[in-house]
Amino acid sequence: MGEQNNSQLLSRVATNDGHGENCSYFDGWKAYDRDPFHSTRNPNGVIQMGLAENQLCLDLIQEWIKNNPQASICTDDGVAYFKEIANFQDYHGLPSFRKAIAKFMEKARGSRAKFDPNRVVMSGGATGAQETIAFCLANPGEAFLIPTPYYPGFDRDFRWRTGVQLLPIHCDSSNKFKVTLDALEAAYQNAQKNNITVKGVLATNPSNPLGTTMDRDTLTTLVSFVNRKNIHLVCDEIFSGTVFDKPGFVSVAEIVEDDPCCNRDLVHIVYSLSKDLGVPGFRVGIIYSFNDAVVACARRMSSFGLISTQTQHLLASMLGDDEFTTKFLAESRRRLSERRRIFTAGLKRVGIRCLESNAGLFCWMDLRPLLKAKTVEAELELWRVIINDVKLNISPGTSFHCSEPGWFRVCFANMDDKTTEMALTRIRTFVFRANAAAQEKKKRWNMALRLSLPRRFEDMSIMSPHLMSPQSPLVHAAT
Amino acid sequence: MGEQNNSQLLSRVATNDGHGENCSYFDGWKAYDRDPFHSTRNPNGVIQMGLAENQLCLDLIQEWIKNNPQASICTDDGVAYFKEIANFQDYHGLPSFRKAIAKFMEKARGSRAKFDPNRVVMSGGATGAQETIAFCLANPGEAFLIPTPYYPGFDRDFRWRTGVQLLPIHCDSSNKFKVTLDALEAAYQNAQKNNITVKGVLATNPSNPLGTTMDRDTLTTLVSFVNRKNIHLVCDEIFSGTVFDKPGFVSVAEIVEDDPCCNRDLVHIVYSLSKDLGVPGFRVGIIYSFNDAVVACARRMSSFGLISTQTQHLLASMLGDDEFTTKFLAESRRRLSERRRIFTAGLKRVGIRCLESNAGLFCWMDLRPLLKAKTVEAELELWRVIINDVKLNISPGTSFHCSEPGWFRVCFANMDDKTTEMALTRIRTFVFRANAAAQEKKKRWNMALRLSLPRRFEDMSIMSPHLMSPQSPLVHAAT
Repeated sequence: MGEQNNSQLLSRVATNDGHGENCSYFDGWKAYDRDPFHSTRNPNGVIQMGLAENQLCLDLIQEWIKNNPQASICTDDGVAYFKEIANFQDYHGLPSFRKAIAKFMEKARGSRAKFDPNRVVMSGGATGAQETIAFCLANPGEAFLIPTPYYPGFDRDFRWRTGVQLLPIHCDSSNKFKVTLDALEAAYQNAQKNNITVKGVLATNPSNPLGTTMDRDTLTTLVSFVNRKNIHLVCDEIFSGTVFDKPGFVSVAEIVEDDPCCNRDLVHIVYSLSKDLGVPGFRVGIIYSFNDAVVACARRMSSFGLISTQTQHLLASMLGDDEFTTKFLAESRRRLSERRRIFTAGLKRVGIRCLESNAGLFCWMDLRPLLKAKTVEAELELWRVIINDVKLNISPGTSFHCSEPGWFRVCFANMDDKTTEMALTRIRTFVFRANAAAQEKKKRWNMALRLSLPRRFEDMSIMSPHLMSPQSPLVHAAT
Repeated sequence: MGEQNNSQLLSRVATNDGHGENCSYFDGWKAYDRDPFHSTRNPNGVIQMGLAENQLCLDLIQEWIKNNPQASICTDDGVAYFKEIANFQDYHGLPSFRKAIAKFMEKARGSRAKFDPNRVVMSGGATGAQETIAFCLANPGEAFLIPTPYYPGFDRDFRWRTGVQLLPIHCDSSNKFKVTLDALEAAYQNAQKNNITVKGVLATNPSNPLGTTMDRDTLTTLVSFVNRKNIHLVCDEIFSGTVFDKPGFVSVAEIVEDDPCCNRDLVHIVYSLSKDLGVPGFRVGIIYSFNDAVVACARRMSSFGLISTQTQHLLASMLGDDEFTTKFLAESRRRLSERRRIFTAGLKRVGIRCLESNAGLFCWMDLRPLLKAKTVEAELELWRVIINDVKLNISPGTSFHCSEPGWFRVCFANMDDKTTEMALTRIRTFVFRANAAAQEKKKRWNMALRLSLPRRFEDMSIMSPHLMSPQSPLVHAAT
């Protein structure tokens, strides 16, 4: 079928690019898919560092499952429940599941906030949760403000089929990418100037890609901002259980509980077990709203993405096991912290720094010193070298809508220790060679050109001790 | 929060009634939920006959699971796969799952059509599949034609969040509710007259609520109609494995394969395991499209409703077991046929007939003789008596958009033999009393009024030997 015929036959949603897959974030995945690293079968393949997956504690879950055969409907001990569970399709979900997940959400937040099982609404992963909440809160053409940098998947999840817009709240490294009231107001005014109705703010805490938590002041600023404008605040807290260092995590639920003036109808939380528990395949997304009408509406919408009852049943037992969840969360944080320490220390040895962070499954790596220019093009040129020659799938900041070129998200929890070491070796070798080439180049230029260096290169040599040679074979291959 | 504030704060989708839950179909469920029958704990409660669930062969699945512990990631034999499976979140799905489900789809269709695993797209149940295909094929305001009577859930699944319209193709009992070319053309012309763009036809085969299969001629008419108009044909075949009697099932896939002139890009199938296998809790929905662009787009959309990999993994083994699926489908058909025979025979003893059918988990019961008038109001009045006094949740034809009052869908496969007997006893007692009261009434009226009967009652007494008395306490209680 020709393109033209399809564009008439199919819908606009089907024929537009709103799914957002045509961006470098997903291109990196494709590069990995074409040539995936394997320690023995393909040791020179691309190492996947573009996937925020948490594989560090799956052994603990595996052990729990072995010790709790009654929790599954597929064992001799549990199969008597098969009929009842396989048949259950109520969009309220299994009461035991809702109760257990509310309890787990409390625990992941240090028990400083209460979660009511009756406000827990299921969805197909955080992906489905984001779409559901967008459908509930905004009409096509209306907008949510979102701090940059932000997770590229939001462009699909929140916008694609809903027709809702996402407008950036620009944040930058000058204050460690914190959301300020000025930036909020500027984004809001900008929308008004363009006659776009703003229906809310979508915030991710802990941040993906930054790996940082929002402090209480910033959260309070956000909550009072949305109250003043009478718009919504959607907080994506899917990394809340990954906070491994101080300052601790503050959930918007705490702010709501502490602030008697806050209009609770405006506040909604998105949660998931894909990151905290490391089970993205199970498709457990949660919408937790303080607004009764949103709970009722989202629950009806959950018909489109209910969680398999086989999975609900298993998780109800697992997350209902207090001793297990306490141990799991503590051990998971310990292992994430340790992995991050090893990874950032390895980068530091060749002078690469990351944004200081205390959560998440990734670092926000500062490769600004390696850029040929402070431009998106230069960032993407460097990224192509890293993908194609260094064979690491990391994600460029531009795919996260970052307004400062040179930052990259690097995931570190979806691999074993050996692969981590391998990835570090590749990065270090790359940077070492780039530095050496730059030194060599500099020396030659210094000799040949003396003081006649053009202004641009002079600037770059000051801010970029690791400047890469334009003649480097790595760069060449990528351009 | 007040209604008014909500209508400004939330979206139109959230505040309209497009979810379709405010109809008698769902009201019946609520009545059941308030007072559910239980053989010992609540023997006078409402018996659920409004739920097209297939519980008749779950014992076979249970047995298979016990014999195949390696199929689950939650057993000693299978837990070694836990990490790999729980982590897998590719929207293509497990290759083994897609292969097994394509094979099962073929088998449920008597192996007369081929299904390519690469065209199998996952979704959250048939609910999610319907929404996905609507999003792919039509813009808000555009329409699909749909033969009546049809499943009430389509109003939510196909329309609610997509903004797509469903326009009726009126069918009636004069030809056993078959879809004719005249009816198709009339519906199409009617849409054109109202300036509505028709993007396709949505057909259910076997039909829910009729329990009948479409014959080859009707399917051929549909396929050539959509080809002539260059619009889509979506065939919902979620009951294909329930066909228990002649004539056998013909899938649209057979027609497409046999017709070299058919534009395959126009044809799409929706499937599910909720009915054929009886596992609605597992949320297995499938879109099978012959159109490459739709496969690609629907696959991206499947991110919103992926099937839990725990469930995919189990089903890949189960449906990959040829011996089991052959036995299961045969035994399931045998048990459904037997249950239908018992049920319709029981109804026949008090003169109630059902539309002749050969598939599905329900009968299309003809209660026209019990109506006080040939109106929707009379149908709903009778329905309220049956819900409130007879304590059976059956679904009135009007909730299926049937244009002839007096038909009811009665599900028979979601209960055990004893409950079936209990339901039959209740219906028979009700009809018997209604008949007796009518006879008594008739006798008194005959004596008092002789030949001065008003025309309306005369008509009804001819066509309705079981006419219910307006003074019946059952009717009184319901009005």
